[in-house]
Amino acid sequence: MTTSTALLLADLTGVAVFAASGASAAVAKRLDLFGVVFVGFVAALGGGIFRDLAIDEAPPLAFGDWRYAATAAVTAAAVFWLHPEFARLRTTVLVLDAAGLALFTVTGTVKALDAQVPAVGACVIGMLTAIGGGLGRDLLTAEIPVVLRREIYAVAALAGSILVVLLNALGHANAGWLTAAAVFVFLLRLVSLRRRWSAPVPTARPPRTGMRGRRE
Amino acid sequence: MTTSTALLLADLTGVAVFAASGASAAVAKRLDLFGVVFVGFVAALGGGIFRDLAIDEAPPLAFGDWRYAATAAVTAAAVFWLHPEFARLRTTVLVLDAAGLALFTVTGTVKALDAQVPAVGACVIGMLTAIGGGLGRDLLTAEIPVVLRREIYAVAALAGSILVVLLNALGHANAGWLTAAAVFVFLLRLVSLRRRWSAPVPTARPPRTGMRGRRE
Amino acid sequence: MTTSTALLLADLTGVAVFAASGASAAVAKRLDLFGVVFVGFVAALGGGIFRDLAIDEAPPLAFGDWRYAATAAVTAAAVFWLHPEFARLRTTVLVLDAAGLALFTVTGTVKALDAQVPAVGACVIGMLTAIGGGLGRDLLTAEIPVVLRREIYAVAALAGSILVVLLNALGHANAGWLTAAAVFVFLLRLVSLRRRWSAPVPTARPPRTGMRGRRE
Repeated sequence: MTTSTALLLADLTGVAVFAASGASAAVAKRLDLFGVVFVGFVAALGGGIFRDLAIDEAPPLAFGDWRYAATAAVTAAAVFWLHPEFARLRTTVLVLDAAGLALFTVTGTVKALDAQVPAVGACVIGMLTAIGGGLGRDLLTAEIPVVLRREIYAVAALAGSILVVLLNALGHANAGWLTAAAVFVFLLRLVSLRRRWSAPVPTARPPRTGMRGRRE
Repeated sequence: MTTSTALLLADLTGVAVFAASGASAAVAKRLDLFGVVFVGFVAALGGGIFRDLAIDEAPPLAFGDWRYAATAAVTAAAVFWLHPEFARLRTTVLVLDAAGLALFTVTGTVKALDAQVPAVGACVIGMLTAIGGGLGRDLLTAEIPVVLRREIYAVAALAGSILVVLLNALGHANAGWLTAAAVFVFLLRLVSLRRRWSAPVPTARPPRTGMRGRRE
Repeated sequence: MTTSTALLLADLTGVAVFAASGASAAVAKRLDLFGVVFVGFVAALGGGIFRDLAIDEAPPLAFGDWRYAATAAVTAAAVFWLHPEFARLRTTVLVLDAAGLALFTVTGTVKALDAQVPAVGACVIGMLTAIGGGLGRDLLTAEIPVVLRREIYAVAALAGSILVVLLNALGHANAGWLTAAAVFVFLLRLVSLRRRWSAPVPTARPPRTGMRGRRE
């Protein structure tokens, strides 16, 4: 009971944060009110819808529980009307977004494990739950998804989902340890933002030659 | 029986109309015959496939009933060969597209309600059934989805799906009232096209300042 | 037993080949290591995930059997580090990609038929299994999907899936004939590459007028 209420609150907080990030991206593209709400909806709920399709929960929670859709829509509409103020809160948004990433990683991985998905698959589903909404947001606004290009973002989610799977295997998948896993993802994301850590990019020239570099 | 035959005819008419709209967009991008048929297929059936995945109808109707795929493919191929004539029918296409929007809104919402999806979720699924194919069409042709940018389109679908859910709650989800709901969506779409109604777009400048506007 | 082992090997070979093609595309876009692995994962497993959602196999094989995700991730990471060498193997890649197309067409169609999907739907699902990963790869890297624009690619998959459905209807869906169907797709793809066959593109001018051509 307490666990499921806590999961619900964690989930809805993540929904609100991601809806705000999606709505901001849509405002920047000058979409209309509907477009802003729609992109907010996709950013907030797309990852969870994918997760529920994969674990065969029908209908997906985003359609089965009205609080999800309502949270996403209200948050996105608020950003639409308040966006100049919102834009000044850029740091706050990044922190909230890191919190959403952490929450969705943990709830997504736990739900996949509960649905009997094996360990590796649960890690991937947990990560996709966390980053899926952002992917959808970038596809809708015709950008190469930002999670594929920069920074430790999806990698933080993946590390967190692996941690949850390990905790589960060790029999420690309780509220305390899961919260610790969420805090780990949150801090990993914030520290890597702060320190500008990023994943390696491809080398521009062939590694084993001393010849003049070529650009393709 | 009569109801399900009527639903089938409504559905297949919508499929043909949306296949034509998808094929037109693909012809404009100079895709080949296969590409035109494929984009037509996605535009016509993408929304319904998403709906069926969400309500766990397997396989989705688009794969389970050959008449859907056949209608989409034949219509799209016809547009491929006839597109110069088709281009002259622009007004006709807009009217047919409004009809498709209306039909898919009603059939999508009804199917979601039949699958025990709660009210808010059924509204969203009904709307996504109607606009999902157009979203897929625009993603495949690398455009920011037009439904996110202009006009009362998705909003008409959403209004229609809310109307269907209300009719259902009041016990009036019969053929007559559902047809009336479809006509409502159809007219709302046509009137807003005619009058150039559109959803509000974000304000370009901060609302509470008298300073010189800045462009970001 | 033997059949399912053969199917597994065929599937994993296709996964590796498509992971390599996705990773190459991501390297060309200068995505980071995570992005390269992710696009490789989508290219390798996206088609199969869609197939499993459509036939209601939960969780999709890509999440249910760790060998799929591992094969995709390791192959994509290898391309990331070895890409200059890989780029010189362009012909090899095209041949391997044709092999992947052939394998996924056959395994996708067979799985759809096993899940009781009717003939037309099984053809479409088989084709989508084969081309779905490439579609996902191109959407993620913000390209109009290449299968929609050029060459006999999806058409080879569609011809192969129709062949498998016919073999099944005739009671010949055994390992020997299915292998022959895969070889047929493979050769059709290679021959059309070699001969530069392609599907027809839209005519640039209206067919039934002798007037000066207009460009839209």
